[in-house]
Amino acid sequence: MREQPPSPWSRREPAPTAEAARAVPVRRNNDEMRVYGINACLALFARRPQDLRKVYLLESRLGDLKSVLAWCVQKRLGYRVVENADLEKLTGSQHHEGVCFDSQRRPLLSLSTMLRGLPPPPKPALLVWLDGVGNPHNFGAVLRSAANFGVHGVILPPDSALGLSGAAYRVAEGGAEAVALAQVSAGEDIFGALRNAEFSVAATVPREGESLYAARLPQRLVFVLGAEGGGLRQSLIDRAGLHLTIPGTAAVESLNVAASAAVLFGEYYRQRSAESERKKYKKS
Amino acid sequence: MREQPPSPWSRREPAPTAEAARAVPVRRNNDEMRVYGINACLALFARRPQDLRKVYLLESRLGDLKSVLAWCVQKRLGYRVVENADLEKLTGSQHHEGVCFDSQRRPLLSLSTMLRGLPPPPKPALLVWLDGVGNPHNFGAVLRSAANFGVHGVILPPDSALGLSGAAYRVAEGGAEAVALAQVSAGEDIFGALRNAEFSVAATVPREGESLYAARLPQRLVFVLGAEGGGLRQSLIDRAGLHLTIPGTAAVESLNVAASAAVLFGEYYRQRSAESERKKYKKS
Repeated sequence: MREQPPSPWSRREPAPTAEAARAVPVRRNNDEMRVYGINACLALFARRPQDLRKVYLLESRLGDLKSVLAWCVQKRLGYRVVENADLEKLTGSQHHEGVCFDSQRRPLLSLSTMLRGLPPPPKPALLVWLDGVGNPHNFGAVLRSAANFGVHGVILPPDSALGLSGAAYRVAEGGAEAVALAQVSAGEDIFGALRNAEFSVAATVPREGESLYAARLPQRLVFVLGAEGGGLRQSLIDRAGLHLTIPGTAAVESLNVAASAAVLFGEYYRQRSAESERKKYKKS
Repeated sequence: MREQPPSPWSRREPAPTAEAARAVPVRRNNDEMRVYGINACLALFARRPQDLRKVYLLESRLGDLKSVLAWCVQKRLGYRVVENADLEKLTGSQHHEGVCFDSQRRPLLSLSTMLRGLPPPPKPALLVWLDGVGNPHNFGAVLRSAANFGVHGVILPPDSALGLSGAAYRVAEGGAEAVALAQVSAGEDIFGALRNAEFSVAATVPREGESLYAARLPQRLVFVLGAEGGGLRQSLIDRAGLHLTIPGTAAVESLNVAASAAVLFGEYYRQRSAESERKKYKKS
C-alpha cells in the first residue's frame, strides 16, 4: 500500500496501514457495503456517485477510474492505491478486478413503491420474481441479463439476503444498478398488488407448462423463477395465471436458473420487438 | 469410510484407508477422470457404463445409485461408501453432491469425425464453436443449455483444456454426455470443413451484428462464441459469413457467455419449431 500525494484521506482520518485495511470487515454496517469489479463500480459511480464512501484500487486501474478519483478529491472522500493482496482481503474475493468501493447500500424498495415507479398500464413492463434463488452468482447473472433485456424490476422474497452481496454485484457487471429491486414483506398480498397493477403472473415450470415459444406473452408480465434444485413452490404455481415451460430435448432435467432467465427475458424482448415492427409496418 | 459387506473391492486390490483415498489426485492418468455431481454421474452411467472404474458415494446416495452399485457388483468394480470430507478431498470440491466416479475419459472427437456423425445436409444441425471459453462453470453451463436445446456438437480450440474438468461435468448436469465434443487440430481448416458440411458460421458480436431476433437462422448453423472478457478473435469475425448481436438496452456491455449461449440456442430451437409448425399446417 503506497500513499498517493493527492489523496485527501489524511484530512478525514489517519491513513490506515495495510494491516488495518485488511482488518476492515467485508460487510460494513447495514447501510454500507463493499462493491467490487470494474463494471459494477463504474455503474455505481455513474448512477449514484453521492453514495460513494471510499475507493481502493490497484495502480493499474488509475486510468480507468480517473473521473472517480477526481470526484473523491472534490468531495473529500478517501481513495487509496493498494496491492492485489489487500484487495483480496478487502473484498474476500480473488475476482475484485482491481477496484473496490465502500458505498452506501442501494435500499431495497417496497413492492408498492416499485410498482408505482413503472410505466402505467397498458404500457409494456416486465418483472421477475425470484422465489428463493440462493446463489449470488446466479442472482448476479440474472441481474445482468435483466439489465440487458430491459427488465424493469426484480421482486425478492421477504427472507432474502440476495440484496446484500458484493459477489452478485460483480457478476451483474453493472446490471445491479440498472434494475429496480423490491423486497416483499412477510404476508404481503403480492398476487393482489400485481393484479392491481395489471400484471399477469407466469410461473416457470420444468414440464407440462405451455411452451415458451408457443405462448403469446402478455405486455405486462411477471416471470416467477424458483430456487436452484427445489424449483418453484407449489403454492406459487397454483396461484399463477400462466405456466410456461422452456421446451427442449429432455437430455437434461432443466436449464440453470440464470440460463432460464436469459431465455425468458430474450423471448419477451423478441415478442415486443416483433410487435413494434408490425405496428410500424401498419402505419407505413 | 466404512467397509460395505457386498463391496467387491477387496477382490481387486486392498481396500484403501481414508488417508489413501484422500491422497488420490483429482486428475488420474490422462485416460481417466473423476466425475462428480449426481446428474453428471447418472448420465455417464446411462450412456457409457463400460467406462466406469470406481464409485465413491455417501450412504445417503445408496438409494439413488442402486443400479450403479448392482453393475459394480456384476462387473467386479470397486465401490465405497465414504464420508463427506472424503468426497471433498477426492473431488477437490464441496459440490460433489454425494457421489464421485472414477471413469474412463470420454475421448474428444476430431472435427471430421464429429461432422460425419451429424445428420447429413440439408437436414438441420446446430453446432457451437467455443473459441477460448476458459471458465469450467461457463463451459458446463453451455453444455447444459446445449443438451437442453438439442445442439449436436461443440467445437473446441486445439489448446483447450476444457474437455477435462470434473467441475464442468457437474455444472452440465448430465449435458456433457449428451453433446458431441470435438477438438480441432492446430492449423486445421475449420471454415473449409464446416463449409464442406454445408454449415453457415455465425460469429456472435456485442454490437453491430444483425439482431438475433431479426435474423433468419440457417438450418445448418455454427454459433461461434468468444472468451469471457476478450470476446471473439477478429480473424474469426472476419471469416464468419454471419454476424449476430443479441439486442438489448446497453445498460450492460453484454450478456455472460453462458447466458448468450442459452439465448442463441433457444432462438434457433424456436425458429426450427416454428418451421415445423408451418410445414404441418401446409400439409393439413
